Amino acid sequence: MEKFENIVILAAGRSTRFWPLKDKNLFIFCGESLIYYQFKKLSPYAERIIIIANQENAYFLRKLFASYSKVKIVIQKGEGQASALLSLANKIGGEVLLVNNIDIFNEKIILPQIIKERNNHQLILTAKEMKEYFPGGYLKLKKKQVVELIEKPGPEKRPSNMVRLVVDYIANFQDFINILKKVKNPMRDGAFEEGLNLYLKKTPSTFINYQNYWYFLKYPWHVLSLKHFFLSGIKKYTGKDVLIDKTAKIKGDVYLEDGVKIHEYSKIVGPCYIGKNTIVGNYCLVRESMIGDDCLIGGYSELTRSYLGNRVYLHRNYLGDCVVENNVLFGAEAVCANFRFDEKEIYSVVNGVIIGSQRNKLGVVIGSNVKIGVNASLMPGVKIAAGSMVMPNSLVLKDVKSEVGY
Amino acid sequence: MEKFENIVILAAGRSTRFWPLKDKNLFIFCGESLIYYQFKKLSPYAERIIIIANQENAYFLRKLFASYSKVKIVIQKGEGQASALLSLANKIGGEVLLVNNIDIFNEKIILPQIIKERNNHQLILTAKEMKEYFPGGYLKLKKKQVVELIEKPGPEKRPSNMVRLVVDYIANFQDFINILKKVKNPMRDGAFEEGLNLYLKKTPSTFINYQNYWYFLKYPWHVLSLKHFFLSGIKKYTGKDVLIDKTAKIKGDVYLEDGVKIHEYSKIVGPCYIGKNTIVGNYCLVRESMIGDDCLIGGYSELTRSYLGNRVYLHRNYLGDCVVENNVLFGAEAVCANFRFDEKEIYSVVNGVIIGSQRNKLGVVIGSNVKIGVNASLMPGVKIAAGSMVMPNSLVLKDVKSEVGY
Amino acid sequence: MEKFENIVILAAGRSTRFWPLKDKNLFIFCGESLIYYQFKKLSPYAERIIIIANQENAYFLRKLFASYSKVKIVIQKGEGQASALLSLANKIGGEVLLVNNIDIFNEKIILPQIIKERNNHQLILTAKEMKEYFPGGYLKLKKKQVVELIEKPGPEKRPSNMVRLVVDYIANFQDFINILKKVKNPMRDGAFEEGLNLYLKKTPSTFINYQNYWYFLKYPWHVLSLKHFFLSGIKKYTGKDVLIDKTAKIKGDVYLEDGVKIHEYSKIVGPCYIGKNTIVGNYCLVRESMIGDDCLIGGYSELTRSYLGNRVYLHRNYLGDCVVENNVLFGAEAVCANFRFDEKEIYSVVNGVIIGSQRNKLGVVIGSNVKIGVNASLMPGVKIAAGSMVMPNSLVLKDVKSEVGY
Repeated sequence: MEKFENIVILAAGRSTRFWPLKDKNLFIFCGESLIYYQFKKLSPYAERIIIIANQENAYFLRKLFASYSKVKIVIQKGEGQASALLSLANKIGGEVLLVNNIDIFNEKIILPQIIKERNNHQLILTAKEMKEYFPGGYLKLKKKQVVELIEKPGPEKRPSNMVRLVVDYIANFQDFINILKKVKNPMRDGAFEEGLNLYLKKTPSTFINYQNYWYFLKYPWHVLSLKHFFLSGIKKYTGKDVLIDKTAKIKGDVYLEDGVKIHEYSKIVGPCYIGKNTIVGNYCLVRESMIGDDCLIGGYSELTRSYLGNRVYLHRNYLGDCVVENNVLFGAEAVCANFRFDEKEIYSVVNGVIIGSQRNKLGVVIGSNVKIGVNASLMPGVKIAAGSMVMPNSLVLKDVKSEVGY
Repeated sequence: MEKFENIVILAAGRSTRFWPLKDKNLFIFCGESLIYYQFKKLSPYAERIIIIANQENAYFLRKLFASYSKVKIVIQKGEGQASALLSLANKIGGEVLLVNNIDIFNEKIILPQIIKERNNHQLILTAKEMKEYFPGGYLKLKKKQVVELIEKPGPEKRPSNMVRLVVDYIANFQDFINILKKVKNPMRDGAFEEGLNLYLKKTPSTFINYQNYWYFLKYPWHVLSLKHFFLSGIKKYTGKDVLIDKTAKIKGDVYLEDGVKIHEYSKIVGPCYIGKNTIVGNYCLVRESMIGDDCLIGGYSELTRSYLGNRVYLHRNYLGDCVVENNVLFGAEAVCANFRFDEKEIYSVVNGVIIGSQRNKLGVVIGSNVKIGVNASLMPGVKIAAGSMVMPNSLVLKDVKSEVGY
Repeated sequence: MEKFENIVILAAGRSTRFWPLKDKNLFIFCGESLIYYQFKKLSPYAERIIIIANQENAYFLRKLFASYSKVKIVIQKGEGQASALLSLANKIGGEVLLVNNIDIFNEKIILPQIIKERNNHQLILTAKEMKEYFPGGYLKLKKKQVVELIEKPGPEKRPSNMVRLVVDYIANFQDFINILKKVKNPMRDGAFEEGLNLYLKKTPSTFINYQNYWYFLKYPWHVLSLKHFFLSGIKKYTGKDVLIDKTAKIKGDVYLEDGVKIHEYSKIVGPCYIGKNTIVGNYCLVRESMIGDDCLIGGYSELTRSYLGNRVYLHRNYLGDCVVENNVLFGAEAVCANFRFDEKEIYSVVNGVIIGSQRNKLGVVIGSNVKIGVNASLMPGVKIAAGSMVMPNSLVLKDVKSEVGY
């Protein structure tokens, strides 16, 4: 297979919009962190992979890729995408394929096309046609050539329907870096795009018109879209030491890791992924959900279209369209409501701003190490800080913010 | 079969005591409105049926009986039973059998007796012997002749134990109308009875001593008595496209309309009626209940001796002895309590007056288009206005009144 | 078998620390009161059994032992253990084996040893070696001779590791009584121990070094230890007229008394004892629990490591590590939490003093004739007075005290 000299994966972004969940790059789907999933997809196309990390996740990334000599972890200096790339100045030469870890796309469609085009262009961007307005970067085109990238132009001023996703081919990376260095204040928002626009003015460029799937992990509810994506690829599988009571029902594609136990009268409706040594008790209903390792889905619990991390304990609960990170304990009969009575879009307050989730079914998002009291009622779209306790019998109408950060 | 020239069905009564439920005449039992049920019973005995409607239900009644040439809908002018009959002045002649739609009785016992007696008497009333005092109209008798009708005389002053139900035979209806016209203020309470008493003074009359069933639909909890009556006639039946999981248990007489689905591990104990396309999810217990069309009895729900209209959605709820009209949504784990801790009679406030329900098991009565929040607790005998929302985690101790009427 | 002339059972202690539960001596385990259980164990070793009762339980004890001529009930005068024994002055002579009804020990180990030693010593005490400090009475020893009994010396000042349990052999009871009479204010705390110490100074004594089980019933949560003890001796048994649905699962040693019914899809995991005519409804989970007679474990209930008296009614509840006396009704979806979020020892306030329960799993303790409202949440270690009502939807964070005592 033809390869790129360097694939650079951006994995240093601060996850403030992802609160109360932690590092997006290390978020686990089907037992594997997102960065590892991306690595597996991109590795066949790369002679070398450079992952740009931040101070916090670098330790974990180094550990994760310790045995892969092809992978190099570089810690980003400063904030933002321009800073990320400037961190690589003088470190790599030749060509670079730049991808953002939180964009999930079909590499088997995009990468062969870029490989085909790379001899003819110095710069190749990737974009997806969007008929509805999407708050991203739009390509201004002159025939197949990209003239300019315009960030969030508003619905009326779109230069085209082509929205960029971060899969950029740069034939001469040092050349690009030299342009990028000219941008003032590289840590500010839009600095990367300014550099790219300067580069576009002097460089023959084109773009790949990509029409397949594109997921991204920006807000915590995006975990549900990704969960859906990962589950759609699941096949029926039963690991070692799995016990399924003969009265339990397993329907559709259900992936059971080693040591899973499914007790009497429970029902699992695929697609589902259930992690190692997780126990599903009696009279449980699990549908279209992803469950981590060492969880206990206690008796009478119902889990619908939800994501649970590792060591999550349910007991007589209902969770619909929820995202729950690690080490979370639910008291008996606590309920997560997952739609508004007016059936409208569920919104959430992120960094003080109301953000529509583009979902009319969304439950609660819970960080790690949280305990939820018995009979608590959690309203749709509410987010619960890591380390919190929710009072028994309480009605949680808005986000619960921790005293202490993590 | 011998027939009556006219059967007049009173169906214009305002349903204020029936609040929060709507029109009693159009209330649905086993998939059929009460007025249609009465029509089917009385039709074989009638050459012509006149239904006295009000401004609101006339539209629906005309639609319902559009293809029955024998049926005529007349809109009542003014309020009360006397006004109802005066609305028919000059419209019909000959004999009339007068019945009230909200009285349910065994027509096969009463009507043949009236037919047998009608050549000998100008006026035949119907009464049931009541040993316990009942707040209705009592017959004052001279042998078999009715001398006077006395409304609610009080327990001590009963002229007999014979309580009138509205099944009156009037041989010469115009004659009776002429008397009734003499009563002043026909819209006031008691005007009809005054006219009847005037008529009794000048007319040879008798009464049918009726000793079979008698139900009436006055207060909303009477729906439960009627539900019980209708279910007692139910036979085991399974419609088309019904799916019953092999782990589900169906015991006793359960009537399943077309398209009903019963999922794993649920149990239905008859007598029960389940309407078209209703789904009973997993781990549900349904006993002695009547459920309308297109309902979803969501997982872990328990429904005991209750009435549900169409499009009612349960989810992990307990409802005992409840009446729920159409389009009602229950959040997960909401509970309807159905008896008092002191085990006393459950009362209800109707038009500002405390009314004993004569039941020590009674849940909640819910009008149409209501949403009940998760983990809500609704106390016995509480009534919820149509169009209301009940807060999650709330304790509802008294009636919820809508801002807007219907 | 060699016998003791008199076995004296102390059964007059006021049960204030046992609140909200009633008389400890009459508390029922596996269908039998504790005093009767002790009687059955000790009877083979006794020519005569004297039970020291109080004014309240004497009636019941006399009834219970009416047909046993060997048993004599004596009502205690005054308070405390010294008074208990002084109540016997001039009533019995010869040797006495003194036991406290609320101490449960292996009589087959202790009693034969005492019998072996009784010819050589005037006084034989019994003690168990405790490595961890225990707030009881410690033996000060000179070789095998007991020199002094020291009550609650504190961890640093223990004279030995031998803690006394009340199984005392006194060869000459009148002799001992004469000494005891010299103690001033026999009703005060420590009067018995003072008398015993006086007696030790003048009497050749020894002790039995006992290393088998020892349970006692002082605080209400001790019921759980005793329940555990009694269940550990349970064997699989199915009484007359027991009905077990073929979809129900019975695992391990489950003792089903006559008339028990287990309905569809329920699961009982032994060791369990279920009393006469108790009904277990649908979808119930019962584990390691003791349930009295005529209970109704209503649908969807879960009972774990708990004790229920007679006529307890559950409905869609979770009870973990709970003690519930007689005639208690739980509203639907009420939950008893059974551990703290910080996983620490659960404490309880007894007579105004915080007492550690030495358990990190403990639910609620409920006296007789209590009603718990729907959706109530009861926190770990809370105690509910007999005769109370708990509001629906309430959060019970501390003890509920009745207006009226019992």
